[in-house]
Amino acid sequence: MAIEVFWGSGSPYSWRVLLALEYKRLRYESHLLDLSKQEHKSADMLKLNPRGRVPVLRDGDFVCYESLAILGYLDRKYPEQPLFGTTAEEAGGILRRICEYQVYVEDHLNKIIAAIFFGALEARLDEVNKSLEVVIAEAHVIEYRLTQAPWLVAGACSAADLMIFPSIKILQRALARREADELQTPFEPLEPNFPAIAAWLRRIEALPGYERTYPPHWRA
Amino acid sequence: MAIEVFWGSGSPYSWRVLLALEYKRLRYESHLLDLSKQEHKSADMLKLNPRGRVPVLRDGDFVCYESLAILGYLDRKYPEQPLFGTTAEEAGGILRRICEYQVYVEDHLNKIIAAIFFGALEARLDEVNKSLEVVIAEAHVIEYRLTQAPWLVAGACSAADLMIFPSIKILQRALARREADELQTPFEPLEPNFPAIAAWLRRIEALPGYERTYPPHWRA
Repeated sequence: MAIEVFWGSGSPYSWRVLLALEYKRLRYESHLLDLSKQEHKSADMLKLNPRGRVPVLRDGDFVCYESLAILGYLDRKYPEQPLFGTTAEEAGGILRRICEYQVYVEDHLNKIIAAIFFGALEARLDEVNKSLEVVIAEAHVIEYRLTQAPWLVAGACSAADLMIFPSIKILQRALARREADELQTPFEPLEPNFPAIAAWLRRIEALPGYERTYPPHWRA
Repeated sequence: MAIEVFWGSGSPYSWRVLLALEYKRLRYESHLLDLSKQEHKSADMLKLNPRGRVPVLRDGDFVCYESLAILGYLDRKYPEQPLFGTTAEEAGGILRRICEYQVYVEDHLNKIIAAIFFGALEARLDEVNKSLEVVIAEAHVIEYRLTQAPWLVAGACSAADLMIFPSIKILQRALARREADELQTPFEPLEPNFPAIAAWLRRIEALPGYERTYPPHWRA
C-alpha cells in the first residue's frame, strides 16, 4: 500500500512533508486539496484529522498529522536518507534548531505574512515591524551558521532545513508583493544581505524531486 | 562523565526534563538555578544557551536545550525506558500529541497562568476567558482519551505525558490562588469534572523519582 499525503498548495506545513518524502525518495500518492474550497474540512478529511488541517499522511492503516510528527514518523519507519541525523547528538541538535524556530520565530514570520496577504499591513504596521526585527535577528544567526556549513545542523540536509525552508520562501513571496513596498527589509533582494541563506535556498531547490514539491498555484 | 541539568524551580520546561531523566532512571547532576536572580542569564549559562533559557542539558561535551530536543536526544542516546514508543507508529502518535499541545493549547494555558501570577486577570479577563474555552475543550479531548487508556498515547508513559503534565500542575496552582476566584473553571476541583485526568496526574506522581522533580519552592 502506497504512502498517501493530503496537502494544500502554499501551506508551508504541507511543503515540509513533500520535501521530506522526496528527500527520502519514498513513493507516495499525492492528494492535492483545494483549501479555498475547504476540502481539508470535508467529512472524509475530518475523519483523518479532526482538526481539519493539512498535511495529513496515511501509510496503510496509520494516519499522522502535524508536520514535525510526520517527519518523525517517516524517519523512524524509513531510516534511509536520515532526516534526524545519524547520532543522538545530531538528532538533539536538529530538534533543538526546529524548536528554536518554532518557539522564537515562526509566529513572527506568520504575522508578517498574514498582514501582507490580508491587506492589513497599514493597520498592523507597528506589530509587523516588531516581528520583522525578530526575524531579521534570527536571519543573521542562520546566515552566520550557513557561512560555516552548507546545512543548518550537522553535515547533511536534515529536518531542520526542510522545516524552515518553506516559510522563508513564502515570506519572500509575500515581500515581493506591491503591498509590501512600504516595509523596509533586508530580504528584498536577499542575495546582497544574506548570501549564505540565498545559496542555501538554491541548495534545497537543487535537491532531487524539488520541482514536485513546488506550490502548483505559484506557477499559475 | 555525568549528565548535568541546569534548571529552574517551577519552569514547566525544566520539569519535563527532570521527569524524563527520572523516568529513564538516568543518573544526573542537578544544577538548580535561581531564576529570580537571573542565574540562567549568567555569562556561564549564556555560553551554554545563548538564549539564556532553561532547561539546559550537558552530557560530556554535548550541550542541548529546548525541552523537546533534550527528550529526543536522551531517548536516542539512552533507549531504555523509551519516551517515544517502540515503533514508528507510536513515535508518530507521541510527536503528534506533543505538537498538537504546543500548537493549539500551550499559548492559551500560558496566557491564563501569566494573567493570574502577574495580577492582570481583571485587565485581561476577556482574553483569559477565551483561552479558558480552548483549554477546557482540549481537556475534554484528553479526558476522553484517558477514560480509554492510562496514558496519553500508546500503551506506556511517554514524552507526551511528560511534556503536558507540568503545565497542568502549574495551571492548577495558579487557579488555586485567591486572585483566580473570579474565574469560573471546571478545574477547581478537578476530580468531579475530569476524573480520568485527575487519576492520570496521580499516576505520573507515583512514578519512581517523581518527588525529586517537584518544584522545590512549592514546598516552602
